[in-house]
Amino acid sequence: MHFELSKEYLDTLLNIIQKKDNEKAKKLMDVLHAADIAEIYNELSIEDAKFIFLLLEGEKAADVLAELEDDDRERFMKVLSSEVIAGRFIEHMDSDDAADVIADLPENKQEEVLKHIADIEHAGDIVDLLSYDEDTAGGLMGKELITVQLNATLREAIEEIRCQANEIDEVYYVYVIDNETILQGALSLKRLLLAKEGMLIKDIYIEDVIAVKTDMPAEEVANLADKYGLVALPVVDSIGRLVGRITIDDLVDVMREESDKDYQMISGISEDVEASDNVWLLTRARIPWLLVGLVGGIFGAQVIGIFEVDLAKHAAMAFFIPLIAAMGGNVGVQSSSIVVQSIANNTIGIESTFQKILKELSVALINGLILSALILGYNLIFSNSLALTFTVSIALFVVVLFASIFGTFVPLILNKYKIDPALATGPFITTVNDIFGLFIYLTIGAMMYAII
Amino acid sequence: MHFELSKEYLDTLLNIIQKKDNEKAKKLMDVLHAADIAEIYNELSIEDAKFIFLLLEGEKAADVLAELEDDDRERFMKVLSSEVIAGRFIEHMDSDDAADVIADLPENKQEEVLKHIADIEHAGDIVDLLSYDEDTAGGLMGKELITVQLNATLREAIEEIRCQANEIDEVYYVYVIDNETILQGALSLKRLLLAKEGMLIKDIYIEDVIAVKTDMPAEEVANLADKYGLVALPVVDSIGRLVGRITIDDLVDVMREESDKDYQMISGISEDVEASDNVWLLTRARIPWLLVGLVGGIFGAQVIGIFEVDLAKHAAMAFFIPLIAAMGGNVGVQSSSIVVQSIANNTIGIESTFQKILKELSVALINGLILSALILGYNLIFSNSLALTFTVSIALFVVVLFASIFGTFVPLILNKYKIDPALATGPFITTVNDIFGLFIYLTIGAMMYAII
Repeated sequence: MHFELSKEYLDTLLNIIQKKDNEKAKKLMDVLHAADIAEIYNELSIEDAKFIFLLLEGEKAADVLAELEDDDRERFMKVLSSEVIAGRFIEHMDSDDAADVIADLPENKQEEVLKHIADIEHAGDIVDLLSYDEDTAGGLMGKELITVQLNATLREAIEEIRCQANEIDEVYYVYVIDNETILQGALSLKRLLLAKEGMLIKDIYIEDVIAVKTDMPAEEVANLADKYGLVALPVVDSIGRLVGRITIDDLVDVMREESDKDYQMISGISEDVEASDNVWLLTRARIPWLLVGLVGGIFGAQVIGIFEVDLAKHAAMAFFIPLIAAMGGNVGVQSSSIVVQSIANNTIGIESTFQKILKELSVALINGLILSALILGYNLIFSNSLALTFTVSIALFVVVLFASIFGTFVPLILNKYKIDPALATGPFITTVNDIFGLFIYLTIGAMMYAII
Repeated sequence: MHFELSKEYLDTLLNIIQKKDNEKAKKLMDVLHAADIAEIYNELSIEDAKFIFLLLEGEKAADVLAELEDDDRERFMKVLSSEVIAGRFIEHMDSDDAADVIADLPENKQEEVLKHIADIEHAGDIVDLLSYDEDTAGGLMGKELITVQLNATLREAIEEIRCQANEIDEVYYVYVIDNETILQGALSLKRLLLAKEGMLIKDIYIEDVIAVKTDMPAEEVANLADKYGLVALPVVDSIGRLVGRITIDDLVDVMREESDKDYQMISGISEDVEASDNVWLLTRARIPWLLVGLVGGIFGAQVIGIFEVDLAKHAAMAFFIPLIAAMGGNVGVQSSSIVVQSIANNTIGIESTFQKILKELSVALINGLILSALILGYNLIFSNSLALTFTVSIALFVVVLFASIFGTFVPLILNKYKIDPALATGPFITTVNDIFGLFIYLTIGAMMYAII
């Protein structure tokens, strides 16, 4: 029922492309959804992709382009002239998708493409949209929307909607405005269908509609749509005039991107890469955080170096170095990730920072006591050094406490200063916890061996 | 414009609840959206929540209940009688939400509640839905949908839609069926509005509509809706009869849950917790993976123990223990998380497992060479032991290679056997990499010091 890209399919297609068999290729593409063709695009060389693209009819070519990932699209745009971009693609795209494509072009090409758009109104919409920051409601919205006047009759409104709807793919809501285009409310198509002949719009519209301002951050818009279960959101300017609408598919993309970004951060990857990307991209995405880890490891080596004499005397002190380092890292990541995810999902609650830290302290005390007691039991049975036994348990307890508080505090502080709190889940904080843990462990160890 | 829960608001509300001031409380709740009341619920005691709930009118109370998190809802249901659950909540809920609520009740209470539902058709729908696995399309779907016959006229269809639409919150699509209720296609409301008097449904319907079978896994349904930008999906049984529909808000929840689950796994948290949960829940979610880490640390201690004699002679060997362990962990998590995220986002590509491993090997070779060269340079300058210098570089190179391959291989294998590949990002694999790294490092070290 749905298309599934396979090696066999791709081979067939490549064969057809090689033979430049326009007709067969077109037939193959005709039955596919734009999203499927975009998936195939990923597996093609830029020349092969161009061959396929120029076979597609306007609307579909535009849809495929809108479905491509940003970096793929950028690369593809480079091989096309401004005229082709404007005439074959932009003309057929919704204003928000068109603005996204144009925003990614180099500046001189942007102007060229805009000049080649035949439909002046469409070009104007795009220019309007280009002025918004792409991570705000303004940057997400499209200009395609259907509006009716508050004081229109049902018949007038339906006539108006028929007129406007021709240009729009999908209609979920009709927005109600006044003479100054100030948003007054909305109307679902269901209400229109159920309304009785002779009614007025103001009798049937929904007054209490959730709208967002153009400068609301994209992430907040997505959270709002998720919370209230909305499939479309009207966007207003600072005096309440309706300027655009955001659809759920764009908001789903925002949510995905946000969660992908948090996931990359915690896994120590610095770019948006996929398993299907090439070796160069994958390496580039991974080396930065590995270098951070390497530098951290060197600091760790220097911390241990301070205790070389003690280690030479009591080699057994080295046994629990990995345990202490790993536990500090694990606890820290747990703490910070709970904060990060709660911020992302807007479930952080209304406790004050102090209350949060206090709660984290309680959790850390319980966890620390359990873990320390267990390792104490283990060492009392299996270790023959009482100094080491006490050192490990005390150090573990201190490290769990420190890593918990540090892991909770840092993302909260980052968030307060509008820095991405997910930074606190990356290797940087883990490394700090590692080094601190080592220092605590070896210091306590040196003292213990001196006493006992 | 949107409600924001604050400490002050909560204090006011608690005050009103304490005074049992029904009227004021009702007034406060009347202006709020169900999702907002659900948010407030989280901050209330079960008695206070019950007080508020029983003030809400049917529809709204049901909406709030549907918005609550599963565990909150379960706790709340415990204090209500079957009659109240059926009469005040289930009657007013969509069938899919109602089935979710009932599925979470203990079995004997399920039957009681079902018996108390006055609307037999509604009860029947719920019983039907309860038969599906909750992680499949059948478990996600609702029975509320609007259908028209393929051979109906436009006028008949609109009459039919008016009749059916009264019972349904939101209508995005009308589904077209034949006499045997086999799904034939769909109609957007826009097409209906644009259609001309006298047309037949078969002239204007969309034949090529994406439907899913009842047994399709929820995650696949969500990926499908995301890929094709759908706001609603019809669900069919194995012979193509239309049995329900899934709406985008439920699919967004599936996506969120999936990404939250992956995020929890990589951060070593074993339950779905939030910063606002209580100390007990937070501790319970964190201790399991910490215990895994502790056991891993004990194994690590034993591995190092094998080399106690060498370490006593060459204490400097201990310096780079944390570096080697951390790098093994970091590289492993990077590798497995790329695979896990690509599987989740369906961007894993069509390369064979062998090709993927080969690519990973190339990335690992480059990263390993860079990191080893850097640490070689550092040690050549700052270390006075040539044995240690070579040991660290060689061990680091081997560890990066091993962790990369292992980190790529394990999630691919897990996925092949239908086990959640995200398991490979958890502390278990990190710990294995740590221990292997230690063993390699100390073995090479012992050999090097023997030779040089």
